[in-house]
Amino acid sequence: MSRRSKGFRPQAVVLLSGGLDSATTLYVARTKGYRCTCLIVDYGQRHRREVKSAKAIALRTGCPFWLIRMKLPWGGSALTSRRISVPKKRSFEKMGQGIPATYVPARNTIFLSYATSLAEAIGARTIFIGANAIDFSGYPDCRPAYYKAFRELIHRGTKAGVEGRSIRIVTPLIRYRKAQIIRLGIGLGVPYELTWSCYEGKAHPCGACDSCLLRAKGFQEAGLVDPAL
Amino acid sequence: MSRRSKGFRPQAVVLLSGGLDSATTLYVARTKGYRCTCLIVDYGQRHRREVKSAKAIALRTGCPFWLIRMKLPWGGSALTSRRISVPKKRSFEKMGQGIPATYVPARNTIFLSYATSLAEAIGARTIFIGANAIDFSGYPDCRPAYYKAFRELIHRGTKAGVEGRSIRIVTPLIRYRKAQIIRLGIGLGVPYELTWSCYEGKAHPCGACDSCLLRAKGFQEAGLVDPAL
Repeated sequence: MSRRSKGFRPQAVVLLSGGLDSATTLYVARTKGYRCTCLIVDYGQRHRREVKSAKAIALRTGCPFWLIRMKLPWGGSALTSRRISVPKKRSFEKMGQGIPATYVPARNTIFLSYATSLAEAIGARTIFIGANAIDFSGYPDCRPAYYKAFRELIHRGTKAGVEGRSIRIVTPLIRYRKAQIIRLGIGLGVPYELTWSCYEGKAHPCGACDSCLLRAKGFQEAGLVDPAL
Repeated sequence: MSRRSKGFRPQAVVLLSGGLDSATTLYVARTKGYRCTCLIVDYGQRHRREVKSAKAIALRTGCPFWLIRMKLPWGGSALTSRRISVPKKRSFEKMGQGIPATYVPARNTIFLSYATSLAEAIGARTIFIGANAIDFSGYPDCRPAYYKAFRELIHRGTKAGVEGRSIRIVTPLIRYRKAQIIRLGIGLGVPYELTWSCYEGKAHPCGACDSCLLRAKGFQEAGLVDPAL
């Protein structure tokens, strides 16, 4: 970013889910000097409240955003099918083992594909995603090896990549613990009161799904009170 | 496929665009003994006529199909934006150089992501796609290296992959010339009269876009008359 002093601000696409991690990622990208375009995806998830949060966060930052509506009508996940229950009150040890029912088949791959398309279309050369491989729920598409494979895919399969202007995927939080993410975000002014983590789509967070439990643990370890509660 | 004799027919997802290559691919997959589920994507392309063709082909075979509707509202291609013209009357030599205006940013990556999601949800371990790297229009996402990278991505980033039931991507036509594809398809009974190749979404094929020219050359070299004309 040596060109920042001359007023050059590179473009980035930021995947914004409305959760804690992606909101922090947006603020990290802005702090690094990127002109961010947010990509919000409504994929028919239970917690559509998340989409509302994502829009509120984008509006707060003044960043332009695209909202994509898509459907995965074949189900296969507790987040997209009412026939599968969201697991509740799991221990953190259990979350680290295996892949839970809230895994949505190929979700991050679909999101990153859209982000790649948007980045190519607007000429952005960086995609930010708030993936996290430490305090997470066992999803395979949150791991570093996955992002490495996606970078290779972009390099091989896009006009930008083939013409030598490949698009990077940046995962600034991948090795952070939830408490570290929260401390980082508080320092950057992330409006956590606008974020939404609960897997259920109800009026208030359930407090028992993996996502609620990880969030609560994060705030507790950071010694802070969750402003969204 | 040694288990075929015992009546075992593995499942496959086949990406069906309504064009000549994907229709042939579906017939190849069926001939190999797969129980095929077709995935048809309406991405707001000019040639929505293609989607109609895809449905007709799926119905002809009796294979179940999913129709996904999506949008790439940021444009970036002659196929999704009226502001960019479809190139006409290009020489075959020119088609082999560079990437044309009909390239849709990350389109095949998005399609394959959906196909991966569907395959995971229904338990299919094979995805067929009619990509072709010989008589093609210069798209980077039709080349073998791209499919190799996608296989690695699936291996790393899906529940199926991580649990050792990875999903293969099969591109049976990737090294075929258009005339060879047509001869193969005629032998398998592909209803080419139902297929649609033209990039324009008009009542009749324009006869001048890359796709029409490649199709005409294919039928000519195969010594056959195009039944769709």
